[in-house]
Amino acid sequence: MKDFTVDYFTMTEQDAMEYAKAINLFPEDAELTCKEIGDGNLNYVFKIVNIKNHQSIIIKQAGPVARISDEFKLSPDRNRIESEILGLQYKLAPGFVPKVYNYDPIMNCTVMDDLSNHEIMRTALLKHKKFPLFADHITTFLVNTLLLTSDVVVEHKEKKELVKQFINPELCEITEDLVYTEPFYDCPRNEVFEGSKEFVKEVIWNDKKLVLESAKLKFEFMTNAQSLLHGDLHTGSIFIKKDSTKVIDPEFAFYGPAGYDIGNVIANLIFAYANGKFTIEDKETRDDYINYLITTIKDVINLFTVKFNKTWDEKATERVARYEGFKEYYLDTILRDTAAVAGLELLRRIIGLAKVKDITSIQEREARIRAEKICLTAGKTFILSRQSIKTGADFINVIQSAELSSVKGA
Amino acid sequence: MKDFTVDYFTMTEQDAMEYAKAINLFPEDAELTCKEIGDGNLNYVFKIVNIKNHQSIIIKQAGPVARISDEFKLSPDRNRIESEILGLQYKLAPGFVPKVYNYDPIMNCTVMDDLSNHEIMRTALLKHKKFPLFADHITTFLVNTLLLTSDVVVEHKEKKELVKQFINPELCEITEDLVYTEPFYDCPRNEVFEGSKEFVKEVIWNDKKLVLESAKLKFEFMTNAQSLLHGDLHTGSIFIKKDSTKVIDPEFAFYGPAGYDIGNVIANLIFAYANGKFTIEDKETRDDYINYLITTIKDVINLFTVKFNKTWDEKATERVARYEGFKEYYLDTILRDTAAVAGLELLRRIIGLAKVKDITSIQEREARIRAEKICLTAGKTFILSRQSIKTGADFINVIQSAELSSVKGA
Repeated sequence: MKDFTVDYFTMTEQDAMEYAKAINLFPEDAELTCKEIGDGNLNYVFKIVNIKNHQSIIIKQAGPVARISDEFKLSPDRNRIESEILGLQYKLAPGFVPKVYNYDPIMNCTVMDDLSNHEIMRTALLKHKKFPLFADHITTFLVNTLLLTSDVVVEHKEKKELVKQFINPELCEITEDLVYTEPFYDCPRNEVFEGSKEFVKEVIWNDKKLVLESAKLKFEFMTNAQSLLHGDLHTGSIFIKKDSTKVIDPEFAFYGPAGYDIGNVIANLIFAYANGKFTIEDKETRDDYINYLITTIKDVINLFTVKFNKTWDEKATERVARYEGFKEYYLDTILRDTAAVAGLELLRRIIGLAKVKDITSIQEREARIRAEKICLTAGKTFILSRQSIKTGADFINVIQSAELSSVKGA
Repeated sequence: MKDFTVDYFTMTEQDAMEYAKAINLFPEDAELTCKEIGDGNLNYVFKIVNIKNHQSIIIKQAGPVARISDEFKLSPDRNRIESEILGLQYKLAPGFVPKVYNYDPIMNCTVMDDLSNHEIMRTALLKHKKFPLFADHITTFLVNTLLLTSDVVVEHKEKKELVKQFINPELCEITEDLVYTEPFYDCPRNEVFEGSKEFVKEVIWNDKKLVLESAKLKFEFMTNAQSLLHGDLHTGSIFIKKDSTKVIDPEFAFYGPAGYDIGNVIANLIFAYANGKFTIEDKETRDDYINYLITTIKDVINLFTVKFNKTWDEKATERVARYEGFKEYYLDTILRDTAAVAGLELLRRIIGLAKVKDITSIQEREARIRAEKICLTAGKTFILSRQSIKTGADFINVIQSAELSSVKGA
């Protein structure tokens, strides 16, 4: 049996089972099986089941090098950040994140709830499944994790210690590069679909005003320590089933602009929308699915707003936060940042290195080009008009206008 | 002889001399004298001289409790922050900060250059002395310490480690309370001169728009990790003589909005202006001094702008900082924050707990009321019109308009 207490090594499935036994997560007589099920880019994920009683857990181990590419070298400190933030989010938004049983700073791994009865939301959306409770669940998660970690609610000295605890230089660098920099010029690392190349060049890279806005937003991302973010809240970071939503993989967590998380949720719902639009053949099924997504996008914004106001009224401790007009101003800046980040995510997933299957799985060339045009056009509008996009209806309006213009353009 | 290596204790003058010998700062046969010369609120400052050769040094020890009042309990970690930032500033702006010889985390003290041949700038200005090189010196200090610690120049992962190193919860809390909160309502801790009370109530506390802006600025201060600030850059934190300017006491240092330091310099020059206006009897002397201050205020803004642009062009490493229009945008936000903070400092020194001698030393009642009115009126304009105050002339214009309106009001 290997010694887990001395030096870090990358575990095999066999090691993971031995590890689980070593830390007494299963009874002596358990009969374990293990499978590495990671499909992310940065970690190894072992699912371990006691076949005697179907009890199961997950061990997530940070690899020594990010799996996305050898270019990204990451220190395994991200697993410390992840286990600490999961613990915090579990308190702030109970029921919406997995429970953590153990964090091991030597093996750089976290042991947590197995959520195999859930499905990765992106995968489910690719099958065009609907989750009518998602908007309600995710907005509770968003309001609780974002507002309840801000200076509006947290005592300021304590908040500064949290900022310090979650300084996350390496993971933030990935975002700064992949989201805020590379998509805005002809960077060799970009991967633009050949049918969209001309459009990207003309409409994105040649638009000096847009490119300038991206720089402002990059500095906002790097300097605005507003809320403790998840930092990577796309539909691949959400486990879902009809009656349950669990947010996972918060290793990008750091103090940043609250709108970052909300904008990512919105953009990834728009990818699902584009997918449904161009891959569902039956009109009735398609309309039904598209309507579900429109409702969900609207609800995410509108329910966020409602719950934000309610939570603020109940929980704000900062004296000046009670000044007339301040809550409205503050929410306004969050919605502005939400629109901007929705735009950035829409652009970077089409132009940059990391793609989403919602778009890349669209087989028909012209359909994919149109789907990409919608994302690019909407993304650009979200960024340029971010000051005036405030309600669920405003967000839908941007998407539908982009769709219209993609037809005209075709 | 006491043991300095075990536990912290507050040093007497005798202890300080023994300490200096214990760490070998003077030769064996030195004949030392020591005087505690601290007039600040937070620390003990010992000046130690070898009377044989006039060699001298300063030992600055953090008291266990802030001296301003027993209400402020501060951990002595501020001395670690101070010695670390002095070392960094010494590299970034050589010649404009004292050299540090030793930092002792047990005794919580820093040993540094004795600057007794300099004078505290506020004291010198109270004598209406002029320092024609000050604007040139301080703008070099400001551009170098602010721009060269920002994401424009510093590699972003390294910058995040600096943010972490200089998280400064307790000292920031003092600023959040005394500058951003208490001056904007009838807080028991305020100390409003009885002759100004009515004006403060009507023009400041009853102006809901102004009060709302103060809340926005407070959150900006708490969340915008732009540059490594001095954090308390008034004329009492500057040692000066004709040909030399040394910035001291950076214990409030943390990553915050760059305009904070510049705004403090401007406001404190305005206090000197108000003092000169109402305490110099001879018209010619008065006009000459006032003109000197007007030129200095103008130059601080205009030279800052010139040097900022030059340093940016030479030193910016961040790719997106080179986008067309970004430098102008960035400078614009710094000047906006400069105006706002100048306004905040003007208000808080008149309304709040911590006063400046420039104003409190004005003996004649009506003169003091007019001086305070000028500061309050200018302060309010700086905050409300901060978006459009961009040049040295704009800053002077605000001051002169406030002066005019104080005459009309009288």
